Amino acid sequence: MMNLGGPATLDDVEPFLLELFADREIIQLPLQRWLGPFIARRRSPKVRALYAGIGGGSPILRYTEAQGKGMVARLDRISPETAPHKFYVAFRYTRPGSDDALRAMHADGVRRAVAFTQYPQFSCSTTGSSLNELWRAASRTGLRQAFDWSVIDRWPVHDGFIHAMTETVRDGLSQFDSQVRDQALILFSAHSLPLDVIDRGDSYPQEVGASVQRVVEQLGRRNPYLLAYQSDVGPVRWLGPSTAEVLRRLGARGQKHVLVVPIAFTSDHIETLSELDREYGEVAHKAGITHYRRAPALNDRPLFLDGLAHIVRDHLASAEPHSSQYPMRCAGCTNPQCRNILNPISRKQESGSRS
Amino acid sequence: MMNLGGPATLDDVEPFLLELFADREIIQLPLQRWLGPFIARRRSPKVRALYAGIGGGSPILRYTEAQGKGMVARLDRISPETAPHKFYVAFRYTRPGSDDALRAMHADGVRRAVAFTQYPQFSCSTTGSSLNELWRAASRTGLRQAFDWSVIDRWPVHDGFIHAMTETVRDGLSQFDSQVRDQALILFSAHSLPLDVIDRGDSYPQEVGASVQRVVEQLGRRNPYLLAYQSDVGPVRWLGPSTAEVLRRLGARGQKHVLVVPIAFTSDHIETLSELDREYGEVAHKAGITHYRRAPALNDRPLFLDGLAHIVRDHLASAEPHSSQYPMRCAGCTNPQCRNILNPISRKQESGSRS
Repeated sequence: MMNLGGPATLDDVEPFLLELFADREIIQLPLQRWLGPFIARRRSPKVRALYAGIGGGSPILRYTEAQGKGMVARLDRISPETAPHKFYVAFRYTRPGSDDALRAMHADGVRRAVAFTQYPQFSCSTTGSSLNELWRAASRTGLRQAFDWSVIDRWPVHDGFIHAMTETVRDGLSQFDSQVRDQALILFSAHSLPLDVIDRGDSYPQEVGASVQRVVEQLGRRNPYLLAYQSDVGPVRWLGPSTAEVLRRLGARGQKHVLVVPIAFTSDHIETLSELDREYGEVAHKAGITHYRRAPALNDRPLFLDGLAHIVRDHLASAEPHSSQYPMRCAGCTNPQCRNILNPISRKQESGSRS
Repeated sequence: MMNLGGPATLDDVEPFLLELFADREIIQLPLQRWLGPFIARRRSPKVRALYAGIGGGSPILRYTEAQGKGMVARLDRISPETAPHKFYVAFRYTRPGSDDALRAMHADGVRRAVAFTQYPQFSCSTTGSSLNELWRAASRTGLRQAFDWSVIDRWPVHDGFIHAMTETVRDGLSQFDSQVRDQALILFSAHSLPLDVIDRGDSYPQEVGASVQRVVEQLGRRNPYLLAYQSDVGPVRWLGPSTAEVLRRLGARGQKHVLVVPIAFTSDHIETLSELDREYGEVAHKAGITHYRRAPALNDRPLFLDGLAHIVRDHLASAEPHSSQYPMRCAGCTNPQCRNILNPISRKQESGSRS
């Protein structure tokens, strides 16, 4: 289960930022080996304060472990032919990292492995970076041949995801009085990307757009909705519209009820608990939005645990090493490592075995 | 049936461009009343030559009329309770315009009218501009109270559209030898928009992304695919990735087979016949793409005529004056005219009558 990760304690904030700003797949800086650490150290106190504000650390490991436990229990039931199933966590910028996961898998005698991204929509800067790191970690740990790999590289419109996400939107709407519930504007918010990443041909905005459409269809209500992008930082131009700016403008023209929905995250972390709830909540309040609410993150919601299990079951049953779209490198990609799979299973030659 | 329109003859090119560059809903220029005509006149010879290259004019009126005829014939059969049906064409920048359509409708004794956008995905700069012009035309012609209006403002994932669009992709793929057909990269191409429009909160990229996802699902093949945006002009930054740049980069890394699919147009016009076929065909050839093909436009394809009829039938049966999303103005919208409907039908109070 691959994800960004987040600092578990305040002392983990600076190491987390150092890893993040060293990743050229998520951010490319001139003189990165020098400038990356410089920016990371300079931002560290501010980010540390944000984590202090949400309880002293990110809950992402706790939620990922709850998701993993719920998922494998369900998988053992719905896919007994591939049981027993185990899960391992591989975060990109904090422990447990890919090395930790691979060593633990090896110690447990795992042979068949699925690299399962926890980002529903594919981006080179998230899933792509995590996968490349996973293959590098396999080399570093001497485990290049230890596992037969397949990859779940995206699931933007899988029913297992859409049903659970739609349930969070319903829960979010239930926070509004029934008289105004129909007027609440649903503001889907996804993490933004620098336009340079978009212009290389990253599939993220297309897939996020598809997720939004499917959730709205599944929801079957008449609330207006809008997709915006959050968390842009620094001097380069990012994909818009910006969630904060949209809130300012909606408030300015008299919108009173807004439900914000984190459409591209699977658990609570700094972008939901701090940025959406606190920072943008303040923006909304100042703009005159009297009722600003957030749909809960998927977290350990049983319907999402069902969804994760179904995504894996469908993947195992397909006996495909990856989605048909996985080999599609960005048109402007310059990284020859992208879209590799180490020691992949052969297509359509699967038989039930441990994952 | 509202669409952009296109010059029918070479002498219509300059008037077409003058109208286009005067539309502040599609392009905002400083000193527009002076600079718009200046740019239009300066671009006119070049654009005239492009139209000369595709037979001396745009086929969009011919195709729209074929679509209208096929649609109303089908509607009379599948929705007899709302028959008889008639169609009228309202182009934005050429004749017949909104004034022409409204006067003809009035002369024919029409009372119940549906403003049916021919842009599958909503944008303020296309459907929004056409609708605002329609309401202005109703005022100009003294026909503000003449009709009971409803609006079909978007249909990005309607089955009637998706099935027909998927058929064009199949036809496009059939142009490749069966040995290489699976390797052909499907490059969906939509008209781009300036980033300032995107940043206001235009729903176009979200809806285009949803259309692409649905077509790929319906297609049920394993070809890689990518969404890019064409036709950016001028000094401002447009939404990417750029179709031309994507072709250059795909060619540079050895992609030999590319099928380009116009995902946001319903008929052939300069952007397909000249830009995609000729200009980008040359780009692809120079980049080393040996097999560059284009999926045919929807044009008068029977499955698309079925689709148009089903879209209208579903709309009439819903008895809704517009989609639930129509009132959702862009967060950054500054045009108070946006999202009006003149003399709208009451929700759920429809009975069968002429459209």
